[in-house]
Amino acid sequence: MPLPDKSGLKIVHLDVRDVRFPTSLGGHGSDALHTDPNYSCAYVTIITETGKKGFGLTFTCGRGTEIVVLTIRAMKRFVVGLNAAEIFADFAGFWRTITNDSQMRWLGPEKGVAHLAAAAILNSLWDLWARIENKPVWKLLVDLEPEELVSTIDFRYITDVITPDEAVRILKAQRKGREERFKYLEQHGYPAYTTQVGWLGYSDELVTELCHKYLQLGFTHFKVKVGLSVEDDLRRATAVRKCIGDDKFLMVDANQAWSVNEAIEWMKKLAHLKPIWIEEPTSPDDVFGHAVISKALEPYDIGVATGEMCANRVMFKQFLQSGGMQYCQIDSARIGGINEILAVYLMAHKLNVKVCPHAGGVGLCEMVQHLQLWDYVSLSCTMADRLIEYVDQQHEHFVDPCVVHNARYMAPKLPGYSTEFLPETLEKYTYPHGTEWRRLFKEGIFPLPDEAELVNP
Amino acid sequence: MPLPDKSGLKIVHLDVRDVRFPTSLGGHGSDALHTDPNYSCAYVTIITETGKKGFGLTFTCGRGTEIVVLTIRAMKRFVVGLNAAEIFADFAGFWRTITNDSQMRWLGPEKGVAHLAAAAILNSLWDLWARIENKPVWKLLVDLEPEELVSTIDFRYITDVITPDEAVRILKAQRKGREERFKYLEQHGYPAYTTQVGWLGYSDELVTELCHKYLQLGFTHFKVKVGLSVEDDLRRATAVRKCIGDDKFLMVDANQAWSVNEAIEWMKKLAHLKPIWIEEPTSPDDVFGHAVISKALEPYDIGVATGEMCANRVMFKQFLQSGGMQYCQIDSARIGGINEILAVYLMAHKLNVKVCPHAGGVGLCEMVQHLQLWDYVSLSCTMADRLIEYVDQQHEHFVDPCVVHNARYMAPKLPGYSTEFLPETLEKYTYPHGTEWRRLFKEGIFPLPDEAELVNP
Repeated sequence: MPLPDKSGLKIVHLDVRDVRFPTSLGGHGSDALHTDPNYSCAYVTIITETGKKGFGLTFTCGRGTEIVVLTIRAMKRFVVGLNAAEIFADFAGFWRTITNDSQMRWLGPEKGVAHLAAAAILNSLWDLWARIENKPVWKLLVDLEPEELVSTIDFRYITDVITPDEAVRILKAQRKGREERFKYLEQHGYPAYTTQVGWLGYSDELVTELCHKYLQLGFTHFKVKVGLSVEDDLRRATAVRKCIGDDKFLMVDANQAWSVNEAIEWMKKLAHLKPIWIEEPTSPDDVFGHAVISKALEPYDIGVATGEMCANRVMFKQFLQSGGMQYCQIDSARIGGINEILAVYLMAHKLNVKVCPHAGGVGLCEMVQHLQLWDYVSLSCTMADRLIEYVDQQHEHFVDPCVVHNARYMAPKLPGYSTEFLPETLEKYTYPHGTEWRRLFKEGIFPLPDEAELVNP
Repeated sequence: MPLPDKSGLKIVHLDVRDVRFPTSLGGHGSDALHTDPNYSCAYVTIITETGKKGFGLTFTCGRGTEIVVLTIRAMKRFVVGLNAAEIFADFAGFWRTITNDSQMRWLGPEKGVAHLAAAAILNSLWDLWARIENKPVWKLLVDLEPEELVSTIDFRYITDVITPDEAVRILKAQRKGREERFKYLEQHGYPAYTTQVGWLGYSDELVTELCHKYLQLGFTHFKVKVGLSVEDDLRRATAVRKCIGDDKFLMVDANQAWSVNEAIEWMKKLAHLKPIWIEEPTSPDDVFGHAVISKALEPYDIGVATGEMCANRVMFKQFLQSGGMQYCQIDSARIGGINEILAVYLMAHKLNVKVCPHAGGVGLCEMVQHLQLWDYVSLSCTMADRLIEYVDQQHEHFVDPCVVHNARYMAPKLPGYSTEFLPETLEKYTYPHGTEWRRLFKEGIFPLPDEAELVNP
């Protein structure tokens, strides 16, 4: 696929906004460690000299979003003034510049705030590229030649597991049947599971009500948050199992609440409810710990799922090598954009681990659908035991929201990465000056922001 | 040891400054991945209602320091208004609050910018505590009862390696002979090694000149930066070995330049120069990779050293378990303050790995000396094969700079953590409004700061 012509593609502006939704008011998104999240994001718009735009975001949980915003502003120097076509021509080189500046890399390296900020910018560039090509991102990825796709990835630190040559060979070998898979996707979409039934902040009545609702919507896989009290978990998970019956599937998610030994003991008590996975049983950094848990739970047919807070491809490399990750839950806005996520997909494929993306946060469903569709057409070529998380929140704020019918993600058709906000969303939810936030402050529903949050008026 | 009386210890103010030194002008601190660092820090001052002060800092490399500053400002809400005595009474609880806020933890968790910021605040609290007790921090640590010291540590995610009870038992078992060790330290200090001889940005002449200088100063251990070109590395390391002779010790430091296989091949080419360790051969996140390198280099008697960019106690736990870390190089301002560093020392002791602290950056020598002195008196009780890094930079800016005589750190005597800057340093080097920075901008030696860096005027 030829690269876009350079003319008009000089990036002349990068704007970033702090956008927050007051989700803590309803307990939506609450789990063992994140008891009151306000689902938020740092939202990037890049503009070329001829006015072409790219939109990208990184998900956050409220407080501290201003820090990611400032970091993105500090990274403007690596982007503004460059020609987007030249970035795409050496995307891996650009990736290393933005993630490994000789002074700023001390702040990570390649993790935490710095990587979240880089993700938002990289996401906006992929969105721009797909808009230039007039394709959704998943179609752009499918249409890139294996060599072109692989050229966007920085392989530093992962060549002991996969090299660029090997990645190209794998992608070429999987080409057979891609037209059929492409058509299948356009007709049938991709399977989803729901996390909407079991947030920790929800009452038992609400959990049961939501189970019925999502059963009627055609869902077959249901995820419940656990980890604060065994008794509560047993009661809630039993209620869900009773509702959904034995022919449907249950997953549980502890959001890092436990130590290694505690995770094993706790899960033995829930094992009779037949969850297919335990998600984030302990620290997202503990590769060895996950391997120990995984081994201990194997006799119960419970797999270990993790990845939404996995810091970068090097951490994924180890999880995938360790036997401690049966389900690889890539996040679309924590590691370094699509470039680094492609590396994770390739390693997962080689090491035979299923990818089931994390989603649910602001814009995450919108993004991961593109990645998983590409994986189906071009890499794993199967949907077996693979699902995309689905949470019915904040979709109404996007120009091109994800569409889930009969528990399946329908393939996006509009150009880009599906991450452009509606103008009225920005007017209302930009923090702290959006109209909705002003109302919430005025009515005393939220306190006025701390001085620290006001650095980006 | 009784806790301080609460009266007067309410924290009423937390001030944070961006302090930068223009070290890139001389190539000081330059290595394979950090080619032009401006050694910098985010500098915290906490003040109690009666005017008692605590000073704490976290090291940075220049660009992006403003992000850490903003993060510290965002964390003020967890500190200001609390009573310091109450913090010390439940230091582990406070630690979890500041590192695991339900909304902000998404920005880490426990890594990167968020953890650097927490480190600066936690360092200032330990400094305050020691000043209240009128002792240097190392003496405060030595004087705390084992139960008191252990109570400052959050053991979440590490109980599979060490529990609080076990930590207390270990500390009690090591009490014998502490008075003698204490006296020995006061007389003889603690051995240091020098990194000053081999920054990558230095010319060969300067390297040789510095070798002679540090030999005359009594140093026996010399560290050289490597990783950009085998030929250069061979030439420089050979020159150093020739200068220092076969009876002295050489270490090499690649600052994460290599992939796993590359590290092994490269080090085989340097092996005849008999380096005792290779430091940071690859990604600081690659536990498995370090283990592979370590095993491959064992026949050459080359150990693997790493830790200055190790993100938190969970990552240290795995490195210490993996056999991939023969020298544990804790950093005093990257992980969550003394609280978390104590956890690493305890795990290293249990798993029989030597701690040789990373230092050299702004204030790092000043801080780590306290930790290592405590370790000698109270935990490992030995100096065998242990050294503290020493770099002769920026000490003149501190009220109580570290003192190295005859290649040994002399035990600090003044109260606190040795991290208070002189007033004239703040006047000159506060970025971007300090007098020295204004001169550097005016004379065109540095460009005027980007808009992004001006959020904290």
